[in-house]
Amino acid sequence: MSDAPSQPHPDRRARLRTAVATSADPVDALVVTDLINVRYLTGFTGSNGAVLVWTADAAADRISTDGRYVTQVGEQAPDLEPVIARNGLAELIAHAETHGARRIGFEADAVTVAAHRALIDRDTDQAAELVGLSGLVERLREVKDAGEVALLRSAAAIGDQALASIIDKGVLTAGHTEREVARALEWEMYALGADAIAFETIVAAGPNSAVPHHRPTSAVLADGDLVKIDFGAVSGGYHSDMTRTFVLSRAADWQREIYDLVATAQTAGRAALHPGADLRGVDDAARSVIVEAGHGEHYVHGLGHGVGLQIHEAPGIGATATGTLPSGAAVTVEPGVYLPGRGGVRIEDTLVVSDGEPELLTSTDKTFTVI
Amino acid sequence: MSDAPSQPHPDRRARLRTAVATSADPVDALVVTDLINVRYLTGFTGSNGAVLVWTADAAADRISTDGRYVTQVGEQAPDLEPVIARNGLAELIAHAETHGARRIGFEADAVTVAAHRALIDRDTDQAAELVGLSGLVERLREVKDAGEVALLRSAAAIGDQALASIIDKGVLTAGHTEREVARALEWEMYALGADAIAFETIVAAGPNSAVPHHRPTSAVLADGDLVKIDFGAVSGGYHSDMTRTFVLSRAADWQREIYDLVATAQTAGRAALHPGADLRGVDDAARSVIVEAGHGEHYVHGLGHGVGLQIHEAPGIGATATGTLPSGAAVTVEPGVYLPGRGGVRIEDTLVVSDGEPELLTSTDKTFTVI
Repeated sequence: MSDAPSQPHPDRRARLRTAVATSADPVDALVVTDLINVRYLTGFTGSNGAVLVWTADAAADRISTDGRYVTQVGEQAPDLEPVIARNGLAELIAHAETHGARRIGFEADAVTVAAHRALIDRDTDQAAELVGLSGLVERLREVKDAGEVALLRSAAAIGDQALASIIDKGVLTAGHTEREVARALEWEMYALGADAIAFETIVAAGPNSAVPHHRPTSAVLADGDLVKIDFGAVSGGYHSDMTRTFVLSRAADWQREIYDLVATAQTAGRAALHPGADLRGVDDAARSVIVEAGHGEHYVHGLGHGVGLQIHEAPGIGATATGTLPSGAAVTVEPGVYLPGRGGVRIEDTLVVSDGEPELLTSTDKTFTVI
Repeated sequence: MSDAPSQPHPDRRARLRTAVATSADPVDALVVTDLINVRYLTGFTGSNGAVLVWTADAAADRISTDGRYVTQVGEQAPDLEPVIARNGLAELIAHAETHGARRIGFEADAVTVAAHRALIDRDTDQAAELVGLSGLVERLREVKDAGEVALLRSAAAIGDQALASIIDKGVLTAGHTEREVARALEWEMYALGADAIAFETIVAAGPNSAVPHHRPTSAVLADGDLVKIDFGAVSGGYHSDMTRTFVLSRAADWQREIYDLVATAQTAGRAALHPGADLRGVDDAARSVIVEAGHGEHYVHGLGHGVGLQIHEAPGIGATATGTLPSGAAVTVEPGVYLPGRGGVRIEDTLVVSDGEPELLTSTDKTFTVI
């Protein structure tokens, strides 16, 4: 991770300027419309926003939003002159053309075919060339600065404390429904200061634990059940992500066996988190443990993903991933084994990659636990 | 609204078939990738899904999702044969080409420039023509069937009861923070059976009430404050949306004046909700009341929007809207007057347009209320 700049947003735009200027396909200016990227580059959190970043002139950068957010944009992005308009993409491209840009980049993964067609059809006699670019801001976002890591720590601590609290209060016991457990966990996270819930909380009991992304139902927890809980909090916009799996009252041998297998794979995955590590190799470090135990077909997803302003962001760690793990990336490590109709185990942590040991953000114990 | 079909999803796909076949730009098949539209057409709620709808052959329709959702797609969309793949758009287009489609539609508002470029570059010797289409499913969704209206009613009732409950419990009083009020309201909605919160709850006290889309802060409610609350619940995927504005303990004349003005405008807006009404005319019915009172510049947004599987959907009701209001549309009516630095009032209901009186779903009293 890099040091926390005193002004993170101008610093992030400066990094973007360098990335654009040194790319294979340089442009005079770039209009960013993905709202998460807009937040990352400016601090603005409204539901309509775009930012124009010039390759050569930081002072000419602009932010755009509509009339609902005039006050908010001034408070959150005081260093950027606002352009008030409903269609920020079209308006900022027109602004850039008026100010001499001949090649203007846009985010090919954020702009729809319909919005692009409207730009192509725009009526102007100084039309710039529009260049679709991919992943520029997402790649910058992979490496967290100290301020971002502090927020990730805070979000993870809320998750740890909330889970401990519902266990203390006896909520994670036979007789409660999956939905009750999920709501109690969310209530604790809010009480602990979460801005929001990071994603739809998964509480999956008994055979439901074999469904990787189960939605909580009115199914009642019973003694002997595996209970898989995958959840997170948001703090200052940053997400935590942790999964723990417990057994209620008494454990069967098969439950202990798959738990130990997943725990061994998860340890191997965490141990592979080194700066520069091949992403596929990290996946394989954990996956090979499960495959060798004959459960490869019961592990149906990737090992992990980046986490930050989004719950899923770059880099993805999976069997088809490309690229390497940068120092400062915050990623999950979450292998699982799911036996349809019986039950499943997933163990997931979020860690920050560094030159030494990765920093473990999610600190809830991972020992096999019968509650 | 139309009668509830016993099988809503096949019926909705049949309506889509008719819309495609009779459009100005007919295609052999359409691949739908917007996840809300996928849910509407199939019932499937996973985070990765696409559906192929043939113009001439319902039996050839397919749904696509990835390995995480094999069980879920079978349960939620048992009438559709699944194609298991990570990239449903590419896979279903290839499937349609293999089965003879020469012109294949896609959703131009859902497919990004990058995804489209990958399709154009695809390696095939039977490439069909790809046709970007806009708003086909969104237009069908404007008209709610009886099953959808029942879910909207249920969501709105949860909102009404939750607000009544926090007022009963004394939460809406001086000394509490905006955030505490928001969390209490959300807790009540969950306790009343909400699947989720419809959108980020707005609780805005005192001068904050002048910010149309204020996020709850640690600001403490004080006697004499206007308190604006805009919130909703989700029930079976359908959203409710209601705003009420109260005054705490004692009201000033200016507060009562803008409240009465907004209430008059809101009544005029509701009275304009007739099938076939021009959308701009509906907006104007309410807006002209506020403009004539000299507060036009303090009313900075449209009158309302459709509500259903999304909190904002077609039709939009605003000064630049085009088109008319269909019978069966569920829409909000929500004028506001915002005096920067002082305070603001918004009053919002959700209603279903019908040939008689529109049905009012949000039934909390709108009389000027000092709590």
